[in-house]
Amino acid sequence: MSLDPARLEPMATAIRALSMDAVQAANSGHPGMPMGMADVAAVLFSKHLKFDPTAPDWADRDRFILSAGHGSMLIYSLLHLTGYAAPTMEDIRNFRQLGSPCAGHPENFLLDAVECTTGPLGQGLAMGVGMAMAERHLNATFGNDLVDHRTWVVAGDGCLMEGVNHEAIGIAGHLNLGRLKVLWDDNNITIDGGTDLSTSEDIRARYRATGWHVVDCDGHDFADIERALDEAAATDLPTLVACKTIIGKGAPNKQGTSATHGAPLGPEEIAAARDVLAWDHDPFIIPDRILEDWRATAQRGKDARAQWTSRLEESDHRAEFERRMAGDLPNDIYPDGFFAGLYAEPQKVATRKASQIALEALNPILPETIGGSADLTGSNNTKTAGMEAFSADVPGNRYLYYGIREFGMAAAMNGMALHGGVIPYGGTFMVFTDYARGAIRLSALQQARVIYVMTHDSIGLGEDGPTHQPIEHLQSLRAMPNLLVMRPADVVETAECWEIALRQADRPTVLALSRQGLPQLRLEDKGENLSKRGGYRLKAATSERRVILIATGSETHLAMECAARLEEQGIGTDVVSMVCTQLFDEQDEAYREDVLPNVGPKRILRVSIEAGTTFGWDRYTMLNGMRIGIDTFGASAPAGELFEKFGFTVDAIVPQITNKLNA
Amino acid sequence: MSLDPARLEPMATAIRALSMDAVQAANSGHPGMPMGMADVAAVLFSKHLKFDPTAPDWADRDRFILSAGHGSMLIYSLLHLTGYAAPTMEDIRNFRQLGSPCAGHPENFLLDAVECTTGPLGQGLAMGVGMAMAERHLNATFGNDLVDHRTWVVAGDGCLMEGVNHEAIGIAGHLNLGRLKVLWDDNNITIDGGTDLSTSEDIRARYRATGWHVVDCDGHDFADIERALDEAAATDLPTLVACKTIIGKGAPNKQGTSATHGAPLGPEEIAAARDVLAWDHDPFIIPDRILEDWRATAQRGKDARAQWTSRLEESDHRAEFERRMAGDLPNDIYPDGFFAGLYAEPQKVATRKASQIALEALNPILPETIGGSADLTGSNNTKTAGMEAFSADVPGNRYLYYGIREFGMAAAMNGMALHGGVIPYGGTFMVFTDYARGAIRLSALQQARVIYVMTHDSIGLGEDGPTHQPIEHLQSLRAMPNLLVMRPADVVETAECWEIALRQADRPTVLALSRQGLPQLRLEDKGENLSKRGGYRLKAATSERRVILIATGSETHLAMECAARLEEQGIGTDVVSMVCTQLFDEQDEAYREDVLPNVGPKRILRVSIEAGTTFGWDRYTMLNGMRIGIDTFGASAPAGELFEKFGFTVDAIVPQITNKLNA
Repeated sequence: MSLDPARLEPMATAIRALSMDAVQAANSGHPGMPMGMADVAAVLFSKHLKFDPTAPDWADRDRFILSAGHGSMLIYSLLHLTGYAAPTMEDIRNFRQLGSPCAGHPENFLLDAVECTTGPLGQGLAMGVGMAMAERHLNATFGNDLVDHRTWVVAGDGCLMEGVNHEAIGIAGHLNLGRLKVLWDDNNITIDGGTDLSTSEDIRARYRATGWHVVDCDGHDFADIERALDEAAATDLPTLVACKTIIGKGAPNKQGTSATHGAPLGPEEIAAARDVLAWDHDPFIIPDRILEDWRATAQRGKDARAQWTSRLEESDHRAEFERRMAGDLPNDIYPDGFFAGLYAEPQKVATRKASQIALEALNPILPETIGGSADLTGSNNTKTAGMEAFSADVPGNRYLYYGIREFGMAAAMNGMALHGGVIPYGGTFMVFTDYARGAIRLSALQQARVIYVMTHDSIGLGEDGPTHQPIEHLQSLRAMPNLLVMRPADVVETAECWEIALRQADRPTVLALSRQGLPQLRLEDKGENLSKRGGYRLKAATSERRVILIATGSETHLAMECAARLEEQGIGTDVVSMVCTQLFDEQDEAYREDVLPNVGPKRILRVSIEAGTTFGWDRYTMLNGMRIGIDTFGASAPAGELFEKFGFTVDAIVPQITNKLNA
Repeated sequence: MSLDPARLEPMATAIRALSMDAVQAANSGHPGMPMGMADVAAVLFSKHLKFDPTAPDWADRDRFILSAGHGSMLIYSLLHLTGYAAPTMEDIRNFRQLGSPCAGHPENFLLDAVECTTGPLGQGLAMGVGMAMAERHLNATFGNDLVDHRTWVVAGDGCLMEGVNHEAIGIAGHLNLGRLKVLWDDNNITIDGGTDLSTSEDIRARYRATGWHVVDCDGHDFADIERALDEAAATDLPTLVACKTIIGKGAPNKQGTSATHGAPLGPEEIAAARDVLAWDHDPFIIPDRILEDWRATAQRGKDARAQWTSRLEESDHRAEFERRMAGDLPNDIYPDGFFAGLYAEPQKVATRKASQIALEALNPILPETIGGSADLTGSNNTKTAGMEAFSADVPGNRYLYYGIREFGMAAAMNGMALHGGVIPYGGTFMVFTDYARGAIRLSALQQARVIYVMTHDSIGLGEDGPTHQPIEHLQSLRAMPNLLVMRPADVVETAECWEIALRQADRPTVLALSRQGLPQLRLEDKGENLSKRGGYRLKAATSERRVILIATGSETHLAMECAARLEEQGIGTDVVSMVCTQLFDEQDEAYREDVLPNVGPKRILRVSIEAGTTFGWDRYTMLNGMRIGIDTFGASAPAGELFEKFGFTVDAIVPQITNKLNA
């Protein structure tokens, strides 16, 4: 079946008109990209994209990702024209205005049909890799009847230059994600001008080098686009479709230049474009005939969904499939007696090892978990018994060897989480959250259930030295909205944290875990997950309370030892295990006041103990409290010597406290 | 001239022996890489590397970078064997121990001859790109007589997978950095196992796709290595030398496996290796004959330096060349009357524009500055009059179009700063510090004078929405050791900040600059750079002081307006412009106490005002003070509406303050 160019042309023009008019009305935005890719989008939606506007959450829909998120008017136009409930034309009129779901960049939390938030370049494509991974994994698990769809990505030159893109396409090539199709808006323009200002890369050769199929087309020739997309759809390799386009196509004086990239065209140029495009309709007016043609593109998807629904209804896997796609967890995710076992035989283990103990229990009960590591499997302890490598041949396996690609891993995990049906977790060293930070932020912004297993979380990693020792990382992550940072103190808290993290349907978690062994501090079953409160009194003062030690993770046992010494001196001391400041801050005032009574430092001295920057701890210690931490870079030496050098010993800490009390 | 394999063999064996023995003694470390690359290193140092151990800071030395920094025993061995004053054999015996300059990873601040700190993978190679850029730039400026050297990088599979590497090699290919030579330790092994677990990339094709020359060799065949390095040295393209090696070569039972990567070989395997290698010397003992052969490799460099020194002495450029390599600035870096001009005609400009005003004045006086942007030139305002594109053909130009490569830009700037002779500054949006954070941390750790021009530093960027609006970024950067974060409030403070940043020889600076126009608040010449103190009283209370408003950047004028309203109500109010918390914290107690008297919130209420997270502001407001900020993600709308939505107006703030005072 060949498409009719005479129908496609006005459909594409509708996108161009909406895009230039909406950007003009907002007096800000990016008309060039949607105008350049309008023709390609018209073909994609007319012939290939499998979607049903009445069911944006249909599990087996194709995923469409606008990685070049600044061209957001492309996706808003497409969603409106094809008949999604949102955005409405009123929403489009309010493009980039407060309250409109048509934000400057597409936001997955504002529009159901926006698969992921894009704008930070390269990450849309990388999330597409994750979605394609989830698809192949679920296909292997549930079969063609339930899971059989493609991931289509529109990417620009900016996406292709970003490092995360290179990591992502390397993963896609290695896993041979044949359902992933990237449409490259090859317009030779970036913000600064021609791409020849900054790059000489042979993009085609670069993709081929990592196992991709590449096909070219003239992005303004409907027949040629159709041929290329047909070829892309037919091949079983991840595919780059290089669409040679003219940025701002249709704006007669500005097209082909960076002037169309990120600014309104202006009334004169828009008038000239209307002439060239033979578009004599008022802004935001789409003739019925064109709208009908657009709405008709959804019919293939509607039919497909009807058939799919029948298959689902007949499937033996229905309940489990629906549970997984809904992201629901069973009531009990640990086996019976798991915690009782921990209490029965207290153990001294690194929390990274404790994390593995938890995962060994959780993974068999939760088939939706997909583990992995950026080449630190044996250090992060992310692989549990029976987990085998997710590979091109066996995508049903549950363990990812991401390679030395932290950012790519994190972005792929975002894609998997947003696809649904799987819960990804992945590891690297805490210090390398710096490499993945752009994606961690998108986990938080997109409300994605991604679990970061960040081990070696302090100078306790020892000899590798300052490049590998996090100092500012815990606090700099705690400063990020909608992200839980949990730093458990022992094997029990670690297991509690895993349960909390897995049950956060709408936010990601960073688990900060020690390299070094830590004694078990929780020895008694209290019948509840104490870590849920974020911070709790691990030990109460036995004499009049004069000190509260607030500690996290590997410093909690040190706090307990300091408290014992202080109590010996008659100084009543609480120890608060501050597992997660964000959860603690969410508790009601009465609880927080009970744990940290606001009586002033003269009455009760508060002391934070964490082997990282003291920055930000004033909130819990008060300004006149004490903060035991490290405000310089670390050093290379065995961990024990480093803790001593940086003052993390009972002998170093207790006298500071007693001096302060006596001052 | 061909090298004699019979001499090279024991020289390489000395590296292997030192590496396995030092790792064993430390009981931690990475023997596999130095043992695998020992043969290649022996050839490189014997024939090509231009170095003089008696002058590690010789300006025209070749730069040698161990990008695979975990293999640090390779560089420690080489530096010791070739005769550098440090490390001594005692230092090597103390590998990875507290106080030894032979840290787990090579640290540029511990050993003069370590060009840059490596360990975070990919960044060594990317810094090599920056060093090669500096070399070509200085060559164009000072000629072949003074600047004519190569940059040699040893990189592993991990380096090559990292996104930053892809960005960096794209820059190198585009700029045709023919003096850059990368020796790839092609051993097919990563920590998790074989590289085939995680990658299927055709590395050679990938490098060729971006304009590199590629040559292969057997990394254990001296003649073949020599041939390949000769070819690499002769070609005028950036070159990848793919050295096929066996990781841990010489350890008979473990070589070729990941077991040699990151753990001691153990006494038995070391004994077996001594047999295989025919090395019957005690640990840390190098026979004189072998040491002599190693020391002899330095002769070429010593001769070259002698000739170079003669040329320098005769050069007309000597004084300027030496000034630039020393990193010394003139006493006056602004033209006469620059500040007087600012006071004479107060202006309302965005601080990003103010930054350009400063740069327009500074750049003609400081030929060492090299500007650039990651494809946001017109937004970051980093390009000044007369600056033209640094290109393959004209490397003497001073402006870099880095492309959409934030991390690569930052790492390249580190390389340039460490090379010396240039002072790099580069821009992107503040939110994308997330992409570059790994390199920003290395700027700080390496004490490198790099200036980050981070514009669009708040919700004030408006319509682009939450993906582009920094929230946690200012504070998360302030948490990093040895990094100045400066957020100037107006055109005067911005000019002051530029001077402060340029004069920080030992630390990097992030300039946080507004998109939106800001009124000039500094209207009077006080005869000194007030921003130097980090925070200062911009306005003193006119009635009894009851409130101190502590504001930064674009919120400072708002603080001034709030203060005016409060004073109208008889509430004496100071305004402190907190340009840089780190510099403020470095002031003596008397100064800090004067600006922020520690009298308790009942007497004087402290209020911070910054359009970012409140996290960490408690340090300045005290717990019972007030923090006006944003602890959620932003939104897409015009800036004015966002400031209103998020409560950044006089009408929103003042009643909160008066309520608190009356509570």
